[in-house]
Amino acid sequence: MYTVLAITCHPDDMEDTCAGTLLKCKARGDRVVVCHASSGNMGHEVIMPDELKKMRLQEAQDAGEMAGFEILYGGFDDLEIYESNKEAKDKLVKIIRQVNPDFIITHAPNDYMPDHVAVSKLVFDASFAATVPHYEPQIEGSARLVPIYYMDTCGSVDFNPTDYVDITDYIDKKMEMLACHKSQVEWLANHTNVDYHEKIRTLAKARGYQCGAEYAEVYQMCQVYLKGTTKRYLP
Amino acid sequence: MYTVLAITCHPDDMEDTCAGTLLKCKARGDRVVVCHASSGNMGHEVIMPDELKKMRLQEAQDAGEMAGFEILYGGFDDLEIYESNKEAKDKLVKIIRQVNPDFIITHAPNDYMPDHVAVSKLVFDASFAATVPHYEPQIEGSARLVPIYYMDTCGSVDFNPTDYVDITDYIDKKMEMLACHKSQVEWLANHTNVDYHEKIRTLAKARGYQCGAEYAEVYQMCQVYLKGTTKRYLP
Amino acid sequence: MYTVLAITCHPDDMEDTCAGTLLKCKARGDRVVVCHASSGNMGHEVIMPDELKKMRLQEAQDAGEMAGFEILYGGFDDLEIYESNKEAKDKLVKIIRQVNPDFIITHAPNDYMPDHVAVSKLVFDASFAATVPHYEPQIEGSARLVPIYYMDTCGSVDFNPTDYVDITDYIDKKMEMLACHKSQVEWLANHTNVDYHEKIRTLAKARGYQCGAEYAEVYQMCQVYLKGTTKRYLP
Amino acid sequence: MYTVLAITCHPDDMEDTCAGTLLKCKARGDRVVVCHASSGNMGHEVIMPDELKKMRLQEAQDAGEMAGFEILYGGFDDLEIYESNKEAKDKLVKIIRQVNPDFIITHAPNDYMPDHVAVSKLVFDASFAATVPHYEPQIEGSARLVPIYYMDTCGSVDFNPTDYVDITDYIDKKMEMLACHKSQVEWLANHTNVDYHEKIRTLAKARGYQCGAEYAEVYQMCQVYLKGTTKRYLP
Amino acid sequence: MYTVLAITCHPDDMEDTCAGTLLKCKARGDRVVVCHASSGNMGHEVIMPDELKKMRLQEAQDAGEMAGFEILYGGFDDLEIYESNKEAKDKLVKIIRQVNPDFIITHAPNDYMPDHVAVSKLVFDASFAATVPHYEPQIEGSARLVPIYYMDTCGSVDFNPTDYVDITDYIDKKMEMLACHKSQVEWLANHTNVDYHEKIRTLAKARGYQCGAEYAEVYQMCQVYLKGTTKRYLP
Amino acid sequence: MYTVLAITCHPDDMEDTCAGTLLKCKARGDRVVVCHASSGNMGHEVIMPDELKKMRLQEAQDAGEMAGFEILYGGFDDLEIYESNKEAKDKLVKIIRQVNPDFIITHAPNDYMPDHVAVSKLVFDASFAATVPHYEPQIEGSARLVPIYYMDTCGSVDFNPTDYVDITDYIDKKMEMLACHKSQVEWLANHTNVDYHEKIRTLAKARGYQCGAEYAEVYQMCQVYLKGTTKRYLP
Repeated sequence: MYTVLAITCHPDDMEDTCAGTLLKCKARGDRVVVCHASSGNMGHEVIMPDELKKMRLQEAQDAGEMAGFEILYGGFDDLEIYESNKEAKDKLVKIIRQVNPDFIITHAPNDYMPDHVAVSKLVFDASFAATVPHYEPQIEGSARLVPIYYMDTCGSVDFNPTDYVDITDYIDKKMEMLACHKSQVEWLANHTNVDYHEKIRTLAKARGYQCGAEYAEVYQMCQVYLKGTTKRYLP
Repeated sequence: MYTVLAITCHPDDMEDTCAGTLLKCKARGDRVVVCHASSGNMGHEVIMPDELKKMRLQEAQDAGEMAGFEILYGGFDDLEIYESNKEAKDKLVKIIRQVNPDFIITHAPNDYMPDHVAVSKLVFDASFAATVPHYEPQIEGSARLVPIYYMDTCGSVDFNPTDYVDITDYIDKKMEMLACHKSQVEWLANHTNVDYHEKIRTLAKARGYQCGAEYAEVYQMCQVYLKGTTKRYLP
Repeated sequence: MYTVLAITCHPDDMEDTCAGTLLKCKARGDRVVVCHASSGNMGHEVIMPDELKKMRLQEAQDAGEMAGFEILYGGFDDLEIYESNKEAKDKLVKIIRQVNPDFIITHAPNDYMPDHVAVSKLVFDASFAATVPHYEPQIEGSARLVPIYYMDTCGSVDFNPTDYVDITDYIDKKMEMLACHKSQVEWLANHTNVDYHEKIRTLAKARGYQCGAEYAEVYQMCQVYLKGTTKRYLP
Repeated sequence: MYTVLAITCHPDDMEDTCAGTLLKCKARGDRVVVCHASSGNMGHEVIMPDELKKMRLQEAQDAGEMAGFEILYGGFDDLEIYESNKEAKDKLVKIIRQVNPDFIITHAPNDYMPDHVAVSKLVFDASFAATVPHYEPQIEGSARLVPIYYMDTCGSVDFNPTDYVDITDYIDKKMEMLACHKSQVEWLANHTNVDYHEKIRTLAKARGYQCGAEYAEVYQMCQVYLKGTTKRYLP
Repeated sequence: MYTVLAITCHPDDMEDTCAGTLLKCKARGDRVVVCHASSGNMGHEVIMPDELKKMRLQEAQDAGEMAGFEILYGGFDDLEIYESNKEAKDKLVKIIRQVNPDFIITHAPNDYMPDHVAVSKLVFDASFAATVPHYEPQIEGSARLVPIYYMDTCGSVDFNPTDYVDITDYIDKKMEMLACHKSQVEWLANHTNVDYHEKIRTLAKARGYQCGAEYAEVYQMCQVYLKGTTKRYLP
Repeated sequence: MYTVLAITCHPDDMEDTCAGTLLKCKARGDRVVVCHASSGNMGHEVIMPDELKKMRLQEAQDAGEMAGFEILYGGFDDLEIYESNKEAKDKLVKIIRQVNPDFIITHAPNDYMPDHVAVSKLVFDASFAATVPHYEPQIEGSARLVPIYYMDTCGSVDFNPTDYVDITDYIDKKMEMLACHKSQVEWLANHTNVDYHEKIRTLAKARGYQCGAEYAEVYQMCQVYLKGTTKRYLP
C-alpha cells in the first residue's frame, strides 16, 4: 500500500483534523508517518515552555503509539515558524526525504493561525525541493513529486472540501488519541472556553452530513502541475 | 423595531435554518412573518399528497403559534415551483406587498434541491417587482427595496457565511418548533436515514464554533445595488 | 459494480467529453447508459433537420454499440430545451427512474451553449424529483439521490477540475466512437473551422499533463447536501 | 471597422453603463446599434405605462440620434422578461440576425434587478441560436458566433472588471445623452433619492481611478468556447 | 464601548480608507487608537527621507489630534516592511498588547503595494502571537483574540465588501484630516497626477451608492476560527 | 512601440510560456528584454550545478539571440529564491530600473513550484519599489508604475485567462527557441517522463481552441490600483 506523511503543526492538530483518515490508512495497510512540525511549547498559560515541550512531545508519542503511527518532530517551536526561510524549509526537506511518501497531508494555506499557514507553505516549498537531487545533497534520503491534500481548516471555516473520508469506524479511536493531549485539552478549555472533545466530534459529525457518513474528515487537493493525480490516495 | 419576512420553501425549512434568528427578532420586538412557499405535500412516502398538505400546513401553523410568528402559505406544491414564471412570481409579489418587510430572509441560490433554488430566485425577482407601483396594481399593498439575507444551505455545504447570529438562547425553542413537524421528522428519518433533531442541533453547534457562540445560524447578504445596507438588520 | 448514467446533450457530446471515462467504467464491469438529451437535428447547414435527426440518432446508436453502452434518446430537439419547465424536467425524470443510476455524469452549468446549460440544470432538478415517490407516480421506475459529476466544458474553458480520470487505454476507442458521428465531424469542420478529432485528442492530452496521465478526462462533483460522497465512483 | 450591438434593458441603461464606449466606437468608425430590450413602461410612479412607453421610446430615439447610433426596440415591457422562454429568445434572435454584429455588449448575469438578469441570459442564448441556419429560418438575416462583453453592474457592485475603456473624451456627451431620458432621471430621483447625473459621473470617475483614466467604463468578457478572442474589440 | 485599533501603513492611509469609520467610533464613545506602521519617509521626490519622516509623523499627529485619536508609530520605514520576519512581527505584537483592542482594522491582503500587503499579513500573525502569554513575555501588556476587519483596497480595486459603514456625517472631517498630510497630498498629485481629495471623496461616494448612503467606507471581516463574531463591531 | 520586460524564473520558462507573445512583440517593433531570474543550476540529475549553470545561461543566450531579445540574468540560483527578502527584491529592482519597461510579464502567483511563486511576488514588490526615487538611489536607472501580466501556469492548471495572444505565426520559432535548452529538454524527459516539445505545443494548441486561434498563449492582468490600464499592451 502507500506511505502517507502527515505534516501538521502542533502536537494535537493531527488528532484534531486528520487522525480518522490516518487510522483508516493504517487499517488498509499503509505506512503512516506523522511529523509534528512544532513542539507546542506555548500551549499553556501556566506550564512554562521548556517543560511543556517535553510533555507535549511525549503526549504526541503516546497518541501515535496507540495508533501504530511513526511520530517525528519537525524541530520548530510555537510562533517561531517562518515561510520564505531556508532553514525552516530544510527542516521539512529532511523529513520528506527521510519518509519518501506517496502522498502528503498538511494544513490548508488559509487556516486560522500563523504557524499553520507557515507550515502549509513550507510543505509546498519543501516537497518540491526534496525531489531535486542536487539540492542540499547532504540531507539524506530522496523523494518524488506527490499529491498534497490540504485538510480542513480549524472550525471548518471558509473551506469547501472536494474530498471526503468516512471515518465513522475510527471516530472513537480518534477521540482516544485526542485524549492523550492532556495539557492541550485543558489549556484550550481555559483559553477559548471550548470543550475540545465535543468540538472535534461535532465538527466531524457536521462534515459527515455533507457526504452521507456518520463522521467525516475533509480535504482539498493542491491543484498544481506535477501534483495532480488520477488516483484517490485518500482511504 | 423591524418587520422581517422569511420566505422559505417547505414547512420545516424555516425551523431548520433560521428559526433561532427569527425567535431572536421576535424577542427584540420585531414583527415576524413567515411564508412557507410550498405545502410540503410530497414529503412522505406513505401519506398521500392531499392529506399530507393539510397536515403539514397545520404543523407549520402550530410551530408558528408556539413562537408568535404570523404564518402565511405561498400557494405552491412541492416540485411544482418554477423560476422565470409570471404566475409564480406574482404569488410572492402578493406576499411581499401584503407584509411590506424591512428585510427578507430566504434560501441561498446554490442550495441543494430545485424548489429551494427556485424560491431563492423568485424572491429576488418578486422583491423588486413588488416595489413598482404600476406592476400588477391589482395586487394589493406596497413594498420597498430592502436587503435580502440568504440563509445557510442544507447541510452547510458550499456556504461561507458573512453574518453570524448567536442563537444560544433560542436553540431549545427552535428544537421544539422543529418537533411540531411530526410528519417531516419521521419521513426524513426514513428517506435519508437521518435523526433530524440531532442534525439540526449539530449543524447549529458547528456554526457556533466559527463565531464564538454555543449555537449559531448564518447568512450572506445579497450584494446588489439598492439592496446593500449600512445597518445590521440581523439580531 | 455500478450503474452509471451519462445525460449529455447532442449525440456527439458524450464522445467528446466523457467517452473515455465510460469505456473505463464498462471495462471494470459497470452498466453504462447514455442518454442523448437532444436529437442534434440542427447540426448541419445543408442537411435538413428531420433528415439529420434520423442520421444522428443512428450515428449515436452506432457509437454506443461499438462500446457496449445502452443508448437512450431524451426526446428534445436542438435549441428547444428550456429550464424551469415541467415537461422538460419530466422527460429526464423518466430516464432517471428507468435507469436508477448509482451516479450521473452531465454538462457543467457554465458550459458554452444554451442547450448544454439547460440540460445541466434539468438534470439537477430531475435527479431530485425522480426520487420522490409521489411525484408523477405514473412515470415508471424509481431512483435514489446519487452524486452528479459535471464533466469538462467545451474547450476546457473556465473549468478547474477536482477529479481526473486516466483514459490513456481508451483514447483510441474514444476516437473511433467519435468517428461514428460523421455528420457532425463534417459540419463542425465547416461551421467552426476545426478538425474535430485533433481538437478532442489535443484537449484530452492537455488535461493529461495536469494529472500525470497521457490522456485524461476531468470532472467537478456537484457539491450539495445528499449528493456528496466519500467514495470515488469515477474509474 | 466593426459593427457593435449593445443589447441593454431599459431605455437609459445604455447611457448609464456603456454610452462612452459606444461613442468611442462610433468615433473610430464602427457601426453602432443599440437595442433597448424593454420599453421602460413601468419607470414612473405617476405617468401611466402606456403613455410612458411612448415617451421613453422617444427619449431613447432622441439620445441615439444625438450620438449617431441606430436605435432598435426589443419588444418587451418592464418586468415581463423571462429567461428559458422561446418567444423571448426569438425576439433577440431577430435583432441579432438583423444586425449581424462583430461583438455584443450586454448586462452582467449578476446585475441588480430581474429584467437585467433575464436580458443577459437571453442574449447568451439568442446569440448562439441566431447563428444556426435551420433555427427558425423565417427570422431573416444571419449571424456569427462573436464575443460578448458584460458591462458593469448597476452601482458597480460585485463586479471586478477585466477590461477598461477610457471614456474621458466622451463623458460630456454621455451625460447629454443621459439627459434625454427626462422621465427616468426625474423618477429615479424620487424613487431612489438619487441625483442620476451625479451618480453616473461619480461611478465613471471611480472606475477611472482603477485604470489611470479620468473616466472609464468597464467590462468582463464572457469566457466560453467559441466566444473567446485574441483581439480587443473594445475601443 | 469598544477599543478599536487601526493598524494602517503610511501616515495618510487611515485618512484615505477608514477615517470616517473611526470618527464614527469616536462619536459613539469608543477609544480609537491608530498605529501608522511606517513613517512614510519615501513619500516625496524632493524632500529627503530623514526630513520627510519627521514631517509626516507630525502631520499624522496633527490629523489624529483633530479627531481625538491616539496616534502610535509602528517603527517601520517605507519599503522596509517584510512578512515572515520575527522583528517585524514583534513590533506589532508590542502595539497590540499595549492597546488590547476589541477589534482591529487593517489593510486587505490583496492591496496594491507591497507595504500594505506586508502590514496586513503581519497584523494577522501578530494579533495571534500577542495573545499567547509565554510568547516574548518581556513585551508588556496583553491581548485577546479579536475580529480583524480588512478595509477597502486602494482605488476599490478587486474588493467586494461585506460590511458597509455610513460615513456621511463624517466626510467633511475626514477630508480635513486628509488635508493635514500636506506633503503627501502634494507628492501624490505629482507622482500619480491625481487630486487626492477629489479621489477620496469620489471613492467614498461611489461606495455610498452601493449601500444607500451618501458616503461610505467598506470592509471584509477576516473569516477564520476564533476571529468570527456574531456582533457588528463596526459603527 | 513598447519596451516589454519578461521576468521569468528558469532559463526555459520564457520559451515554455510566453515566447510566442514576445516574438510577436518583437515583430511589431517592441524592445524585448528577458530576465531569467535564476540560473537553472539544479535542473539536471547528473550534471553538477556549477557546470550546469554555465551551460544553461549560454543556452538562454542562444535562444535569446535567435529571437533578437536582450537577455539578462537575475542573479539567483535554483531553490534559493525567497520572498519577503530585501536582497532578493533589490536584484529585481536593479533589473527593472535598468530596463524601464512599459509593461511586465511574469509568473502567476499560484504557479506550481516555489521559485515561480517567489519570482511572482518579488516582481510585484520590486516593480513598485523601483519607481520610488529615494528607495536605494544607488541602484541606477528609473522606472514607472506599469501593468503586470501574469502568464499561464505550468500545465495550464487552475488558470482562467482574461487575455489571449494568437501566436500561430510564431509557434515554430518558439519551438526552435525551446530546442536551445538542450540540457533542460533532456532532464525533464527523464525527471517527469514528458516530451517537452510535444507538451508545449499541445498546451499552446489547447489554449488556441479557447480563443479561436491555432496556437495561443494566455494571461491575467494583475488587477491593482495604479497597474490597471485601458490599453491592451499585449500584441
